[in-house]
Amino acid sequence: MIHIYDKILDTIKPTATERKKIIDFSDKLINIILEYANSKGVDIDCRLVGSMAKKTSLKNKADIDIFMTFPLSYSDDELKEYGLEFGQYCINRVNGKSEKRYASHPYITGLIDGYEIDFVPCYQIKDASQLKSAVDRTILHTDYVQKHLTDKEADEVLLLKKFMTSINTYGANYKVSGFSGYLCEILILKYHSFINVIKEAANNWHMKFHIDIEDYGTCDNYKDPLIAIDPVDANRNVAAALSMQKLSEFIVAARNYLANPSIEYFQDRTIYTSDKDLINIFNTRGTHCYVLSFNVPDLPTDVIYPQVNKTMKSLEKVSKMYDFRLLEKGYYITKDNTANIILEYEVDTLSNVKIHHGPLIQDEKNSNSFKKKYPEAYIHNNKWIALSNRKYVNVDDMIQDILKEENMSILKLGKNIKKEILDNYQLMKINEFIEKQEDISELYLYLHPNYLLER
Amino acid sequence: MIHIYDKILDTIKPTATERKKIIDFSDKLINIILEYANSKGVDIDCRLVGSMAKKTSLKNKADIDIFMTFPLSYSDDELKEYGLEFGQYCINRVNGKSEKRYASHPYITGLIDGYEIDFVPCYQIKDASQLKSAVDRTILHTDYVQKHLTDKEADEVLLLKKFMTSINTYGANYKVSGFSGYLCEILILKYHSFINVIKEAANNWHMKFHIDIEDYGTCDNYKDPLIAIDPVDANRNVAAALSMQKLSEFIVAARNYLANPSIEYFQDRTIYTSDKDLINIFNTRGTHCYVLSFNVPDLPTDVIYPQVNKTMKSLEKVSKMYDFRLLEKGYYITKDNTANIILEYEVDTLSNVKIHHGPLIQDEKNSNSFKKKYPEAYIHNNKWIALSNRKYVNVDDMIQDILKEENMSILKLGKNIKKEILDNYQLMKINEFIEKQEDISELYLYLHPNYLLER
Repeated sequence: MIHIYDKILDTIKPTATERKKIIDFSDKLINIILEYANSKGVDIDCRLVGSMAKKTSLKNKADIDIFMTFPLSYSDDELKEYGLEFGQYCINRVNGKSEKRYASHPYITGLIDGYEIDFVPCYQIKDASQLKSAVDRTILHTDYVQKHLTDKEADEVLLLKKFMTSINTYGANYKVSGFSGYLCEILILKYHSFINVIKEAANNWHMKFHIDIEDYGTCDNYKDPLIAIDPVDANRNVAAALSMQKLSEFIVAARNYLANPSIEYFQDRTIYTSDKDLINIFNTRGTHCYVLSFNVPDLPTDVIYPQVNKTMKSLEKVSKMYDFRLLEKGYYITKDNTANIILEYEVDTLSNVKIHHGPLIQDEKNSNSFKKKYPEAYIHNNKWIALSNRKYVNVDDMIQDILKEENMSILKLGKNIKKEILDNYQLMKINEFIEKQEDISELYLYLHPNYLLER
Repeated sequence: MIHIYDKILDTIKPTATERKKIIDFSDKLINIILEYANSKGVDIDCRLVGSMAKKTSLKNKADIDIFMTFPLSYSDDELKEYGLEFGQYCINRVNGKSEKRYASHPYITGLIDGYEIDFVPCYQIKDASQLKSAVDRTILHTDYVQKHLTDKEADEVLLLKKFMTSINTYGANYKVSGFSGYLCEILILKYHSFINVIKEAANNWHMKFHIDIEDYGTCDNYKDPLIAIDPVDANRNVAAALSMQKLSEFIVAARNYLANPSIEYFQDRTIYTSDKDLINIFNTRGTHCYVLSFNVPDLPTDVIYPQVNKTMKSLEKVSKMYDFRLLEKGYYITKDNTANIILEYEVDTLSNVKIHHGPLIQDEKNSNSFKKKYPEAYIHNNKWIALSNRKYVNVDDMIQDILKEENMSILKLGKNIKKEILDNYQLMKINEFIEKQEDISELYLYLHPNYLLER
């Protein structure tokens, strides 16, 4: 086993030379900033933080985070202003390309020599009680991991991150809703090795499992699928963004790995399929599958994905309201910003009429108004019943109709999506849709949801 | 208004001559029995009971009930034996035709001069505390009504019975599950006139309504739709056999009558329809309607109807189990002993696969066996899901298959029906069924459940 992990590390761990190059490079940038700040009479410190500082960054994923720490005496506005100014100055000095970005507050990112460097202003804080914004915590995390994680353990973090990546449970962003890098580090601090994390997850984890390496005793305050108390903040669950789905997938992949500890679990899995294969599968399911496609605006994925998800869930709910039940559903967004919502119905045509439940017979007033509205109403035990015409007898008509501007209020769409759907959408039966796609790998994964969890 | 009721009574009340003829005839029969009993040294009394004795029998519905009352010192077996013997003797003496029947115990019925006469042995009891069998109560009922019901009120009972008959809420048998004759008498004793009963039912009755003319205070012991305490037995609800459905229908018909107090409510309503009309209605409903037909044995309706009803309900339940939901259902039995169960489905074809819910992910043991059974099982949040093939994709196949002997145990059929279905049944789509029927009035009523309640 040792040999496998060494072999994997060879491919995923930055070499000493690569690492030195990055450290030297970031030192250079830090010195430029410190010198400039000094010349402006601003008293800051400046340091490399994040996975690069913690020795837990994967090869070729070397995002460099340089944090400028300000004394608590500076105001929020001063922080923002100086942060953007110093970053911009540094990027200009090394002839990089700059881009303004937004997290809890704006910061500047530089593209320099193929590296992506975030210049982030924050406060010099000693512990969580002094936290002023979410980014301040990064300093505390870096300090904690640097202090407690051994170099051997840092390598185990790399293995865990790589495993998580290839089974698609890595990343705390909304799209994945998986494990953050810091959560991976905490798991290794807790269990010390990749294989121990795998064994514990496979055999001992259950929903609402507690991990509290500093013994704060605050786990019971959380109801999340996994509760991992931040060692630098007793009142934060590091796993808050982890979905039940991704926790389950990790547990299942861990079991699969133990059953067959193949090196392939650390490699991307290739998808081999064809239009014909996928169409055959849908035909065998005998369902009525539609794909609704529309453009999404070029906004951060953490803005767009929740909105597309909300749109899908709203379509499911409204469909159900009209008695069209989904067997399965899914969505994905292509690189050219097209959202595709997959709606797979059990049935696409219903009877023209449905039962409409009315008031109690003994309630004479409401009985009269019900009979006025439904002259053919009749009696079922102690209640009125009417057969009323369905608004939609067929799924296609229903979807097209609820996507009209005048009917759309029945749906809960993301605010950046409504306009796009009104502007243009396409509704296709799955066969037609498949034939029009260049990349059908997401559809393959829709039909094979276990594919990445198994090797 | 008075004129209408007089006019109706003219057609439904036996004339004085008719009545005298029946009374004289039953006196003759009674004398034959008393004389014979006396000759055998058996000390009985003998009397006319039931609606004829209470002056509440409708014209041409003159069933004659002659009860032979035995002292409490006689045993049950002696009662049965003498009862059958004396009845038989009497029928022979007047050259009638006899038939043995069964209620709580066997009795003999004679067909004499076009009348149907029941000869029933019972005990001479003074009050409900002495009751030995259900028939004994008839004596107490006859006594009570004869004592309290005026001749004018007896006429009102006739109006109520006729109204009930033409809206099809009259009869405590299982087929109707409506109002018994004695319940009609109690309603008139309570409200004194037909129109008062109608008004009270239309405006004031609610579910679990209490009627307790002797103020026994025992209503709260019952949970039936209508509670009418037997004036001769504080611990009996006379309305126990009345279904919620029939109570509701009577209330609605009462309201309809008040809105349009037409004489037609005392007449049978003719059904005008055609095959084409009915087929059009089913087509407009856009449902998938099947009729299952089979023979039923020649047993009393109170034995057969519950069994056919049970069979229909079981078919509904099993259909639902396989995701075929009924919009409506119904059954009727023709005079030639064919039961027809109408099963009207919203959808007749489903997807080939359905969602099958599995164990929790954290439950490793059950997860393994589920995955073994469903290798394509996948994860939904914290649980396993599998798509499994439906046993039946189409309604027709489902029904045909569950009616096979080897599969039939899934159904709960009446015990006298199982064999008949196994011997032979027909399953037809509604259009085909309609075209093969001579009498389609029951199908008309299935599609127009209010028809008899409105004029």
